[in-house]
Amino acid sequence: MRHRTHHVPALLMLAILAACQAPAGGQAMDEEAGQAEASGVPRVDFGMVIHGGAGTITRESMTPELEEEFRAKLTEALQVGHAVLRDEGSSLDAVEATIRVLEDSPLFNSGKGAVFTADGVNSLDASIMDGATLEAGAVAGVTDVRNPITLARLVKDRSPHVMLSGEGAEQFAREQGIESTPRDYFHTDRRWQQLQDAKASERAQPVTAGDSATTAAAFHDDKFGTVGAVALDRAGNLAAGTSTGGMTNKKWGRIGDSPVIGAGTYAGPRCAVSATGWGEYFIRNVVAYDICARMEYMDVSLSRAADDVIMQKLEQQERNTGGIIAMDAEGHIVMPFNTPGMYRGWVDADGNVTVEIYQP
Amino acid sequence: MRHRTHHVPALLMLAILAACQAPAGGQAMDEEAGQAEASGVPRVDFGMVIHGGAGTITRESMTPELEEEFRAKLTEALQVGHAVLRDEGSSLDAVEATIRVLEDSPLFNSGKGAVFTADGVNSLDASIMDGATLEAGAVAGVTDVRNPITLARLVKDRSPHVMLSGEGAEQFAREQGIESTPRDYFHTDRRWQQLQDAKASERAQPVTAGDSATTAAAFHDDKFGTVGAVALDRAGNLAAGTSTGGMTNKKWGRIGDSPVIGAGTYAGPRCAVSATGWGEYFIRNVVAYDICARMEYMDVSLSRAADDVIMQKLEQQERNTGGIIAMDAEGHIVMPFNTPGMYRGWVDADGNVTVEIYQP
Repeated sequence: MRHRTHHVPALLMLAILAACQAPAGGQAMDEEAGQAEASGVPRVDFGMVIHGGAGTITRESMTPELEEEFRAKLTEALQVGHAVLRDEGSSLDAVEATIRVLEDSPLFNSGKGAVFTADGVNSLDASIMDGATLEAGAVAGVTDVRNPITLARLVKDRSPHVMLSGEGAEQFAREQGIESTPRDYFHTDRRWQQLQDAKASERAQPVTAGDSATTAAAFHDDKFGTVGAVALDRAGNLAAGTSTGGMTNKKWGRIGDSPVIGAGTYAGPRCAVSATGWGEYFIRNVVAYDICARMEYMDVSLSRAADDVIMQKLEQQERNTGGIIAMDAEGHIVMPFNTPGMYRGWVDADGNVTVEIYQP
Repeated sequence: MRHRTHHVPALLMLAILAACQAPAGGQAMDEEAGQAEASGVPRVDFGMVIHGGAGTITRESMTPELEEEFRAKLTEALQVGHAVLRDEGSSLDAVEATIRVLEDSPLFNSGKGAVFTADGVNSLDASIMDGATLEAGAVAGVTDVRNPITLARLVKDRSPHVMLSGEGAEQFAREQGIESTPRDYFHTDRRWQQLQDAKASERAQPVTAGDSATTAAAFHDDKFGTVGAVALDRAGNLAAGTSTGGMTNKKWGRIGDSPVIGAGTYAGPRCAVSATGWGEYFIRNVVAYDICARMEYMDVSLSRAADDVIMQKLEQQERNTGGIIAMDAEGHIVMPFNTPGMYRGWVDADGNVTVEIYQP
């Protein structure tokens, strides 16, 4: 049915074919994509991009001291990753090393700074993926592992599986020589207070099983956060990883998008993504993989694919769902988010660090 | 840069634009897709397709009596689903009702017939997705729920979440009024013997943490199975669901692709998929969503998209990884698999049932 040219003069046909050789899929919007590229998508020879969570982060809600702490820790994490890449380390190693820095900080909702579940424990999820091999590892619901990103890496490297959960994942950690971390390591007064606040607010307006649309609103806003990293190494390989403590006051063994390959994390040969936000929307929309699939199959830029998913597709379903960081194999870096803020930063091949928090 | 038309005569330009209005992306391959369509992809006004697992299923390994049992149960499941659709029920209701029939049978690796984990329990995973709304529900690692597909449906309908796991998911089941099923309900002598065989074979050749490539082989072959259903209702809406007992002798709380939206199950407005096979490959390749994304973004047929993923992309990575069932909104039904057999069947609007087991 398509390209039916039986009655079209030869010259016209050639012109049509030439025009249609242009990569397809983004017909009406290619010009916009071109502008986005021209208007300053960063590009690096090698480097990385990180996030520390998206949400209602505004200048009004921040003190200068706290902002400085966030900026300093994001910078440190990028410098650790850059050193790995500069010394010919793999993107996978850089992602793991960088996320460990963020997991070890009480500032972010992952590792040390994880939020509390309704049961008053810290239940950690993480995943990591190697774009060169499509190998991946993930853990969900571990409670005694200091660096879940390293456990996810071990699942990838030293098990035949991709995703391990709960006590089973902890048993795997012990078999791999990762000692159990005492649960009070994960206790921070700030997160404990957040749980008490959430429970108080829940008593005022109970969040129980019921209509998903109405109860979902109660889970929204500032209750989630994540850290993530995407890197491109000197060999041209991409990797991505994500780590989280989930949602404050979460129940029923809820698993969000962070440990779900395709939703919270994806890395392929041409495109790698780490997401942060309202996990349920990121799972249903298979966000991380969808961005890479659009780039691959519609031949649009990474910037265009990411904007279409985060700023349009997700926004049409629900406001303020979150954001992503991503790189392509040419070193383009994008960081779109539809929330008031997202902790984020990137480093180029020379080690120059850029850190941002609010809407530009 | 593209469609630069400043110096092109108006008539030529109109012709080019008209030609380029044709959906793009599948340029070089539309003819092949056309052939596949012509060569007998079934199409129904409404109806459904189901699978009961893929693997080393051969005529030699089957008795006539057992084959008859499989054919009868697959037929019954399709008839139950057809009755829902015929009476104006939703595709979501048909998928749930059909999968319950398969879960209640000891023949398939789901529900009653689930395989045993290394710990000697039956750990069940399931997911369901509504193509009309992109709403989804999933459970992983539940041990006392007779029909995990119904629990997944309740997660979708009556929680703000998509994915619940372990004891938390079981607690949610109790809150929803689903009584705990005694664990011995899931005991079947055949599955118990399979666990003993797996453990004996493991003693001969231990499967522990180590190099993933070599140990993975030991998990392969006949140790996994799944059931799934995809339906198109009279209103034109698609839905998909998948339910499994996982892998015989599985450890470490392993989660396969069945409860992972995008990997084992996906449904959108135009395309719905349920997968069965070596879960790790289906997760890494985001198989269910990838098929729908190719159809959507490259504008190829469902048949072409599914064949490219199952028969080419997966086969290039590893042999005998599994198969999928899928429908599009026009009612096309495909069932590609790269293993010797896959239990499968479909029913058309008139209630005509087709059941197949081996390679055509």
